[in-house]
Amino acid sequence: MANSKVGGPEIERLIQLLSKLPGLGPRSARRAALHLIKKKDQLLVPLAEAMGVAVDKIGVCTTCGTVDTSDPCAICSDPRRDQTMLVVVEDVADLWALERAAALNARYHVLGGNLSPLDGIGPDDLNIAGLIERCHGGDISEVILAINATVEGQTTAHYITDQLAGLDVSVTRLAHGVPVGGELDYLDEGTLTQALKARTRF
Amino acid sequence: MANSKVGGPEIERLIQLLSKLPGLGPRSARRAALHLIKKKDQLLVPLAEAMGVAVDKIGVCTTCGTVDTSDPCAICSDPRRDQTMLVVVEDVADLWALERAAALNARYHVLGGNLSPLDGIGPDDLNIAGLIERCHGGDISEVILAINATVEGQTTAHYITDQLAGLDVSVTRLAHGVPVGGELDYLDEGTLTQALKARTRF
Repeated sequence: MANSKVGGPEIERLIQLLSKLPGLGPRSARRAALHLIKKKDQLLVPLAEAMGVAVDKIGVCTTCGTVDTSDPCAICSDPRRDQTMLVVVEDVADLWALERAAALNARYHVLGGNLSPLDGIGPDDLNIAGLIERCHGGDISEVILAINATVEGQTTAHYITDQLAGLDVSVTRLAHGVPVGGELDYLDEGTLTQALKARTRF
Repeated sequence: MANSKVGGPEIERLIQLLSKLPGLGPRSARRAALHLIKKKDQLLVPLAEAMGVAVDKIGVCTTCGTVDTSDPCAICSDPRRDQTMLVVVEDVADLWALERAAALNARYHVLGGNLSPLDGIGPDDLNIAGLIERCHGGDISEVILAINATVEGQTTAHYITDQLAGLDVSVTRLAHGVPVGGELDYLDEGTLTQALKARTRF
């Protein structure tokens, strides 16, 4: 309807672009746009600047595939990181999640997705060749597959394991089990079965 | 923890600013930032530009208080709008909602909030003086109070009605009742009581 374009095309365009962000629908994009306009100096101006900086500076690390302002990224170029361990993740978000856990001091390799024949995603669409190349370098002794426990994830994990066969690299995967703080009642049978099989002495 | 700053301070700042948007928490702000960085050309660049345009162009209409790129806004300066009717809303979001409904072709007056003595919000903190002034102009014959049906909203509505007493202006309010498509089972007793009281012939 003609009346729906309130506030002029500039506001409409802002709302339309905001609604493409994950987590924001058309309604919350309107709220977000209005919030930004009302908090012009506190939020809109700094956010526009931060996005401009991101446009100019942030790129993809040619070594591991994460996003960073430097290439190689801060993690790849950090000499204090264990050079013998490589954690393979599907996505940058997974890398960030593992870094927040701060459980290990290794380097990463971001695949950029999972093998999915149904969606036409084959090995060449992922950063798998780069992983094999890094492992051929000779420094890597362990590759930890921190890949989602989905069908596609497990297909990808098997494919990578096959590709690394013959190299002196041990391939490991994350443990399955009950999430810390999780309630048994809410867990699926698959997880419970895995947790029972892999039970440890108390 | 030191490890939580992944991707450098520029990405951290983007995430931190995005998390201030309504509807986005820290977790969804990370997802949004990553999405923006991945869709640099399709989303990040245009959004940064749209925000820059918003910073430069969007302001508040000095007549009605809405946000727009022109002052007076497109609605206030539209000669096809009924000049005798004024719809009083709490917030720009309410104005947008009414415009989407496209149910009437009137002009608006945005109060910018509600009277709330507990929060220290008095008549001078709202755009009430501007409303009275517009009504004194003589063109306005009806003021429709499209104010939220909350305690503060009703306090504000009563205050405005008092202020307009003596002027040749009829003050009306939105009808209470069952929302279209609403299920009686989910409605509160107050709404049902009002809907029964105001029942109409079928």
